[in-house]
Amino acid sequence: MMLAAICHHASFAFSARVGGAAVFENVGLIAKHGDERVAKTLQNLCSYLSDLHVNIFLDARNAKSLPNFQLTSADRETLAKSCDLVIIIGGDGTFLSAARSLGPHDARLLGINLGRLGFLTDISPADMNQHLGEIFAGNFTVEKRFLLRATIMRGGERVIAEDALNDVVVHKWNIARLIEFETYVDARLVNSQRSDGLIVSTPTGSTAYALSGGGPVLCPTLEAVVLVPICPHTLSSRPIVVDAGSRIEIVMGKGAPAEAQLTCDGQTTLELEPGDRICIRKRDGYLNLIHPASYDYYATLRTKLHWGKEL
Amino acid sequence: MMLAAICHHASFAFSARVGGAAVFENVGLIAKHGDERVAKTLQNLCSYLSDLHVNIFLDARNAKSLPNFQLTSADRETLAKSCDLVIIIGGDGTFLSAARSLGPHDARLLGINLGRLGFLTDISPADMNQHLGEIFAGNFTVEKRFLLRATIMRGGERVIAEDALNDVVVHKWNIARLIEFETYVDARLVNSQRSDGLIVSTPTGSTAYALSGGGPVLCPTLEAVVLVPICPHTLSSRPIVVDAGSRIEIVMGKGAPAEAQLTCDGQTTLELEPGDRICIRKRDGYLNLIHPASYDYYATLRTKLHWGKEL
Amino acid sequence: MMLAAICHHASFAFSARVGGAAVFENVGLIAKHGDERVAKTLQNLCSYLSDLHVNIFLDARNAKSLPNFQLTSADRETLAKSCDLVIIIGGDGTFLSAARSLGPHDARLLGINLGRLGFLTDISPADMNQHLGEIFAGNFTVEKRFLLRATIMRGGERVIAEDALNDVVVHKWNIARLIEFETYVDARLVNSQRSDGLIVSTPTGSTAYALSGGGPVLCPTLEAVVLVPICPHTLSSRPIVVDAGSRIEIVMGKGAPAEAQLTCDGQTTLELEPGDRICIRKRDGYLNLIHPASYDYYATLRTKLHWGKEL
Amino acid sequence: MMLAAICHHASFAFSARVGGAAVFENVGLIAKHGDERVAKTLQNLCSYLSDLHVNIFLDARNAKSLPNFQLTSADRETLAKSCDLVIIIGGDGTFLSAARSLGPHDARLLGINLGRLGFLTDISPADMNQHLGEIFAGNFTVEKRFLLRATIMRGGERVIAEDALNDVVVHKWNIARLIEFETYVDARLVNSQRSDGLIVSTPTGSTAYALSGGGPVLCPTLEAVVLVPICPHTLSSRPIVVDAGSRIEIVMGKGAPAEAQLTCDGQTTLELEPGDRICIRKRDGYLNLIHPASYDYYATLRTKLHWGKEL
Repeated sequence: MMLAAICHHASFAFSARVGGAAVFENVGLIAKHGDERVAKTLQNLCSYLSDLHVNIFLDARNAKSLPNFQLTSADRETLAKSCDLVIIIGGDGTFLSAARSLGPHDARLLGINLGRLGFLTDISPADMNQHLGEIFAGNFTVEKRFLLRATIMRGGERVIAEDALNDVVVHKWNIARLIEFETYVDARLVNSQRSDGLIVSTPTGSTAYALSGGGPVLCPTLEAVVLVPICPHTLSSRPIVVDAGSRIEIVMGKGAPAEAQLTCDGQTTLELEPGDRICIRKRDGYLNLIHPASYDYYATLRTKLHWGKEL
Repeated sequence: MMLAAICHHASFAFSARVGGAAVFENVGLIAKHGDERVAKTLQNLCSYLSDLHVNIFLDARNAKSLPNFQLTSADRETLAKSCDLVIIIGGDGTFLSAARSLGPHDARLLGINLGRLGFLTDISPADMNQHLGEIFAGNFTVEKRFLLRATIMRGGERVIAEDALNDVVVHKWNIARLIEFETYVDARLVNSQRSDGLIVSTPTGSTAYALSGGGPVLCPTLEAVVLVPICPHTLSSRPIVVDAGSRIEIVMGKGAPAEAQLTCDGQTTLELEPGDRICIRKRDGYLNLIHPASYDYYATLRTKLHWGKEL
Repeated sequence: MMLAAICHHASFAFSARVGGAAVFENVGLIAKHGDERVAKTLQNLCSYLSDLHVNIFLDARNAKSLPNFQLTSADRETLAKSCDLVIIIGGDGTFLSAARSLGPHDARLLGINLGRLGFLTDISPADMNQHLGEIFAGNFTVEKRFLLRATIMRGGERVIAEDALNDVVVHKWNIARLIEFETYVDARLVNSQRSDGLIVSTPTGSTAYALSGGGPVLCPTLEAVVLVPICPHTLSSRPIVVDAGSRIEIVMGKGAPAEAQLTCDGQTTLELEPGDRICIRKRDGYLNLIHPASYDYYATLRTKLHWGKEL
Repeated sequence: MMLAAICHHASFAFSARVGGAAVFENVGLIAKHGDERVAKTLQNLCSYLSDLHVNIFLDARNAKSLPNFQLTSADRETLAKSCDLVIIIGGDGTFLSAARSLGPHDARLLGINLGRLGFLTDISPADMNQHLGEIFAGNFTVEKRFLLRATIMRGGERVIAEDALNDVVVHKWNIARLIEFETYVDARLVNSQRSDGLIVSTPTGSTAYALSGGGPVLCPTLEAVVLVPICPHTLSSRPIVVDAGSRIEIVMGKGAPAEAQLTCDGQTTLELEPGDRICIRKRDGYLNLIHPASYDYYATLRTKLHWGKEL
């Protein structure tokens, strides 16, 4: 494969420059696993990038399943530290997973969707070259997105902590009964509730599960978090939007054991025990989402939600 | 009336002090019109304040209907400029009206409810003396609340501007048809919609009409505004929360004339014409809501919305 | 116009027959007013019908604006009594108006939409001839739909009664305040509420305004009525579905005068006074909606609401 | 215990009579398990019933934990066949369980709540004697309630069938992904959806989980069933109300195995497999709910949902 010959010499290449200044010298690539559409898009992408003489690094997790590309592979931490830009090929799910692992390093991420238009992966393979052209010419916008960190406290001890770009969800896994818990914001009791669970969502996640649960859309750069109860027993329950700097705590009731779970971005799941205290805070640092200059958040919203266009 | 004798000499009195420093020297009073419960509460209040030797000023609009009190009367602007504290006796409606007129002067407001517990008037006459005691002893919290300013532009000309503490509402007044309009945030089209109208609400207003319309609760000090569509024709319409610094514009469709109105706080109403552009921005300055130190926003929420308390 | 020569001799023509039995001998036509697309569709329709040798009657209200057609004109009552089938050309609005006037006579109605697909006008001009072919060949389905009759009682006297195919709506017209009223079902108090109003909807209307207000879809042949509160002050208010045979009564509060209206199908509006009692009952008789045999209610629902198709 | 001496001779006693005709001769008792409040209420109840000289039968499942009562015990089938009236002491959960087992026999049920007022257990222990007095004097109302039967079909074979008085719920048990399924009503596709699940609820269940999921209240005697999607991915999804005689089918997608469950009344849970077809129909026969003559469904609704009373 000729492409490979170019790609693995990438470290010798000149970088893309705008007015003499490098825009992105080292580019990481993370692709969805087990999706046959990846290879073709990845090939086009490598071909495009090699023409720009940037250094390309492939996520180590992809290296095995894509051996033909013979790209320099790197683990997530190396990608985060060494790359000016990480391009993610897949759906919003692939993006979320990448974001959580790259997150703490103020990474710059660009998402290419393999299937349907996503909120995070907003470049389609068909438009890829055009948009990359703009972006590598320095014609792009950066949108800062924050992540949440959820820490489970049990008997005064910190058990585990997980990050989320979209949402931290406490939910029952046993349909036979509601779960019961208290919610605190900055050490003040908001309420106790019996429900199927609670979604604590960032603006990024406000168009995902929180929206299905009846939450509002939060403008993506708003420094706020929304708490959305899932099928609450009290009919006057409503989503609450609080400052992103708030300390949110969910204290599980002392009911029957082993009936609640904590899930981050719908991807990592932890078992909860009665009396567990889940502390949710904004994590330090931001992800930097790279968009083509033509990107319009509301246009994506209109398309995906069938909203009306100009009159 | 003996009370009056004391009250109108208030200007000679020493002010309430905390550790030697005056907390509030000049106190304004604004009372609900046409409510017979006002006189008794006002009498108790004046009696209490006169013991503290503060200067009392009665809203000029109240002076006629409450002649027995013989208090120094002052117009709203004077109240705003001269008073350290303005106490409002009535319901949330009275408070809203007072807030709009005092707003631009960073006034400090305290609300005493005559009837049901309100979100803005959170001291009941029964607890008044105790809470005033705390407050004049310097034991209080201040909560900053912002107002919105809605400006109607017609044919490039500014027609009128109105303020709102709770919400600016564009709504049809003719049931026979939906109204049609576009919404822009920071000059970007959000969507066009056919609906009964749109509520643009502050955090303060998020527990009022916006909540009935399906909006979320916004934490009172959040710097955000929520846009809530009223009975939208497109079922996937959802409330959107944007930064309080955003420039929100609503552009009325070119449909049949004279079918839409603009209302601020449910109190001032303006006729809209086809093609009108309504610009809504956060007004400069803040209201300072004074609460007893024991005040708990979420406790009010739990009480009014029948939410669960501690488990 | 040659067409006219045929049409006004329609009474001499043989009727369309299925196995010797006439399917529809006398066909009435009602068209939307002031829509320039009417003429062309009407011309095609008359041409088609005249080939079938059926008698054609044009709604008297259309006769003036469509003089070239020289069709026998008839008032609504005559259309209802003399016609086996009334074809309505326009949108759902035109259909609603026709339905209310033809309603009491168990009329058979067929709707042809001029613009977007409607729930009531489900044949497009493009498919018209094909579908009419099926229908006049006896290959159609009949769906029974009931209407509501709303009667305003004032001081024990019956003031006026109006019919509705979609919905009877009590609503405030003055934005500044909520209206207050009690709802009774079969003489039992359901609740009192403060809200923007109440939608009382048939299954037919459940996909119209009631849906925007948060109501459920009622299967079109269900013998039920749904009561949907509009922006209710009490957050635990919910739509209620009651038997279509129920006697629904709305009793207006004794508040400020002249702030509520009653509207039927969003088309006829009546002023309400404090203390008015609105009695809403299912009207005797049914409309018979004629659909092509291929008609599928849920397919329309999926199309209009962007619902998912087969997996 | 003296009471026991009377109770176990109950078969010799004369029955309660109204104008000479027996109202209820044989009364079954079913009590909540593991609730210490049962014994006292049961003792009062037996004492009351023995004075009426009716035959008392205790649910066999209760007999072990309540040996002191020395009542004639009987299994559920015997209770259903032999008793004129079955009194259930507990909460709505106890009532649901009893209803499913007694259901097919047109049983007459009366619910006494141990704790909070329930929709099914509407007599409190404090008012028990008064209400029983009325009821045994023939002064009561009967409300018919239907049950659903859910049958799981797998590969053309019937796997199992379960009954439900409240609701049949298909739901994911694995938070990480939505489940996907099609819904059919009377063999017509309604839609496909990705969601957390679907609630198929009777009028009885419409005030339970379906209400938390956003469904409407169905008047208890309405012959209708409501389908409520749980957190649907498509925002325009809405609850649908269909005739109780409809054949509802839910066809599970062919996705990843073992991620969905079927639950009846939140009490019995069955694992679903990809491609499973769940057929839900109204079961033959009705439960007869006995209420004091003073019973008012809407009063219960107002109390439990904090709705407004008379103006």
